[in-house]
Amino acid sequence: MIVPKGMTMPKRIVVVGAGAAGTTASIEARRTDRLAEIYLVTKERDTEYSRCGLPYAFSGIVPRIETLIAHPSHFYETISRIRLLLRTECTKLRPDDKKIDVTDLRTGSKRELPYDALVVATGAVPTLPRIRGIDKSGVFTIRTLDDIRNLSRHTESHGRSVLIIGAGLIGMEMSEALASKGFEVTVVEMLPEILPAVLDPDMASIVRRRAEEHGIRIICGSTIKEIVGETCVEDIVVGGQTIKADSVIVAARVRPVVEPWREAGVRVGDAGGIRVDNRMSTNLADVYAAGDCVETKCAVTGKNLLLQLATTAVRQALVAGRNAAGGSETYPPSTGVATTKLFGLEIACAGLTTEASNRLELSPISARVSASTRLQYMPGGTEVTVKLLCDARDGRLVGAQIVGGEDASWRANFASLAMHMRLTVQEFRKKETFYAPPVSPVWDPLTLAARALERKLEASIRTR
Amino acid sequence: MIVPKGMTMPKRIVVVGAGAAGTTASIEARRTDRLAEIYLVTKERDTEYSRCGLPYAFSGIVPRIETLIAHPSHFYETISRIRLLLRTECTKLRPDDKKIDVTDLRTGSKRELPYDALVVATGAVPTLPRIRGIDKSGVFTIRTLDDIRNLSRHTESHGRSVLIIGAGLIGMEMSEALASKGFEVTVVEMLPEILPAVLDPDMASIVRRRAEEHGIRIICGSTIKEIVGETCVEDIVVGGQTIKADSVIVAARVRPVVEPWREAGVRVGDAGGIRVDNRMSTNLADVYAAGDCVETKCAVTGKNLLLQLATTAVRQALVAGRNAAGGSETYPPSTGVATTKLFGLEIACAGLTTEASNRLELSPISARVSASTRLQYMPGGTEVTVKLLCDARDGRLVGAQIVGGEDASWRANFASLAMHMRLTVQEFRKKETFYAPPVSPVWDPLTLAARALERKLEASIRTR
Repeated sequence: MIVPKGMTMPKRIVVVGAGAAGTTASIEARRTDRLAEIYLVTKERDTEYSRCGLPYAFSGIVPRIETLIAHPSHFYETISRIRLLLRTECTKLRPDDKKIDVTDLRTGSKRELPYDALVVATGAVPTLPRIRGIDKSGVFTIRTLDDIRNLSRHTESHGRSVLIIGAGLIGMEMSEALASKGFEVTVVEMLPEILPAVLDPDMASIVRRRAEEHGIRIICGSTIKEIVGETCVEDIVVGGQTIKADSVIVAARVRPVVEPWREAGVRVGDAGGIRVDNRMSTNLADVYAAGDCVETKCAVTGKNLLLQLATTAVRQALVAGRNAAGGSETYPPSTGVATTKLFGLEIACAGLTTEASNRLELSPISARVSASTRLQYMPGGTEVTVKLLCDARDGRLVGAQIVGGEDASWRANFASLAMHMRLTVQEFRKKETFYAPPVSPVWDPLTLAARALERKLEASIRTR
Repeated sequence: MIVPKGMTMPKRIVVVGAGAAGTTASIEARRTDRLAEIYLVTKERDTEYSRCGLPYAFSGIVPRIETLIAHPSHFYETISRIRLLLRTECTKLRPDDKKIDVTDLRTGSKRELPYDALVVATGAVPTLPRIRGIDKSGVFTIRTLDDIRNLSRHTESHGRSVLIIGAGLIGMEMSEALASKGFEVTVVEMLPEILPAVLDPDMASIVRRRAEEHGIRIICGSTIKEIVGETCVEDIVVGGQTIKADSVIVAARVRPVVEPWREAGVRVGDAGGIRVDNRMSTNLADVYAAGDCVETKCAVTGKNLLLQLATTAVRQALVAGRNAAGGSETYPPSTGVATTKLFGLEIACAGLTTEASNRLELSPISARVSASTRLQYMPGGTEVTVKLLCDARDGRLVGAQIVGGEDASWRANFASLAMHMRLTVQEFRKKETFYAPPVSPVWDPLTLAARALERKLEASIRTR
């Protein structure tokens, strides 16, 4: 590039990973610096698509899988002037030279790419449990567009029976998608209840019962011993029983992709993700990171953990992209507020579950309330169950779980904001909420749960 | 009452007014003091009912008007041991004697009622505009069960044309209720746009257009000159035109009932309501007040105003009732978060409108964003329009208005909580919200509005 006299060279920003985080970072970098050269590098052949939309593309709620793709191809080069390198893998970071080595996966050709600022957004990959037969044909993960394309192709030409390993959000969302298409679905979860990262067992059991009513077979507290079959999946040995299945979906946890960064000196934290500060800066100069590959500071405990949510990814990426381009922005801690909808129930959470609180040596106490979203005389209400957790030592709200027919998620948002503000349950209980007969009850179930929790907290203080 | 030796006399708590505030206060007093004598005195012949439910009882969404009544009659005397004096008016407060004078409206008999603590919850009454003919038969207000009973009776035996004076929440809710029953409805509003206390004109116009699509005729910026008719309403002179109507509904503002309290020395503030401190205590010893008759401190400005919402009434009443019974509780300022649903649109607000901000000599700047409640690829989204206001001097959020197909209200709650915490728009913009394709977009319309407002704020700072 020839730069006229008196002008400085444009800054070169390289973003590795073109998922929600990488793409958001590159767009925000462009917004921040109109002149920068921006490279967006990805191993995949697709540009950004909605990962969370994959179950709905499989079910057909989203009729064409390609509509999950966020931007048309001309968006990158033409509109945003972002140099897009598809099917390109970064194999090495050389921080002293401020270069990365990349390989074109189609041609095998290698090149180096210098950077002034680097944004690492390599995301995460599904982990496969060590089970005999896991390498058989008919075993799938749910992470990429190609995963859904492959699963669709396989299920079309094989039987109608699918076993899902893992009853987390993706596992349960896939169980619903499969059931809606008439598949026979079994979900196997190692832990005693479904959705263990999201809900306490008493709350999750509401969802499990609903799933079972919709024909899902759920086996908790069991692990897969073996996947049996000639070349393709046929039988799955679960605990003492053998279950016939034509396909297996592994929906276990995803592992942050921290190589080749760690090898080059990027610090990885105890939770297994890249450690960043509140500017989304790694320990290496001019190297930022965002999304599923980083650890996020918990707003409740201040500890680093793997949240791996789209919500956190895009917010972190805004900060990383802006700072990489010379701007100045900070990312606050997160409550991990999350939601989904399963079998007509909204399911949402923020902060910690009881199990997570105990593990972190908090002293959680909780209260659970079920109530209608309308006054008794008004039609249209649905039941919502709210569980709130506070730390018995100071009364601070540390967790919220909501399951119900409507607006569970917004109640989680509201509780999440209260956790961001470090409110005690006594303070939270007093926060007003709107009321009108066609929209809500006078006392929201969230407020009722807060009042119940406050009473339990007071009782626990009296008996100390 | 004979009290055994060694026991103290039970405290006597008298609550005047048996609406949501008075009833809540008496129940909370009972919860706080199991032994107190509690009197609940009301002029009306009905115990607590849902005032906000009146339009839905008229429309038939609530099939039986009596279901609006909150508690069965045995709830008071038998379950809660609350002495209920229906059709009983308090005519005088004698604070030095700690007594009130009451008259039984059925018999005319008078008595005095001593109190150790008094809770004033006399609510508010509709104001009638000074219009020639306002006293004709066929003119109604919407405040009590009897108002709805009378209106129903009248409209059954008269024509199908109704004119509503005032396009506030009640006026618009009644317009929908009447239209749903096939009435021909005209709404006349003095100010230039509907819902002036709730929404800025640009936001209210969305609702007005929707109402007009549903056949409501709306005339803004006009006043009623005269109501013409023999004994019953026949024609209404509005501006230069004459409109035929068989009934008139006055849905103008309601006036706090501050007598006989003011006469006895209870302080009334500039906004026209009883002035209370954060314990809901008036300036007189042992006299508390709550609900539509009091002024409420605004969480945004710290100034006292008339909010007159059920949300504030019941929360104030909890505090008044508990303190009257010897407990200790405080009521925080309010954002006045409010909602309704009209013609399929949810309408919600918190904090101040632009007009109110200007009147209070803030320097409001605002941003408005319309966006879908789902990602583009996902079915089921509806449009939501969010308008946020901040004070240009310090960036603090001072108002939120939301109109849309779903969850407008929860967005108002979320913004309301942010206003309670005195967040700036820059801080608010960073507060995460949940995301999942079947529930929400990645960037909520609320966050998009906050980002737009932040940019306008930054631009306004640069040009100063």
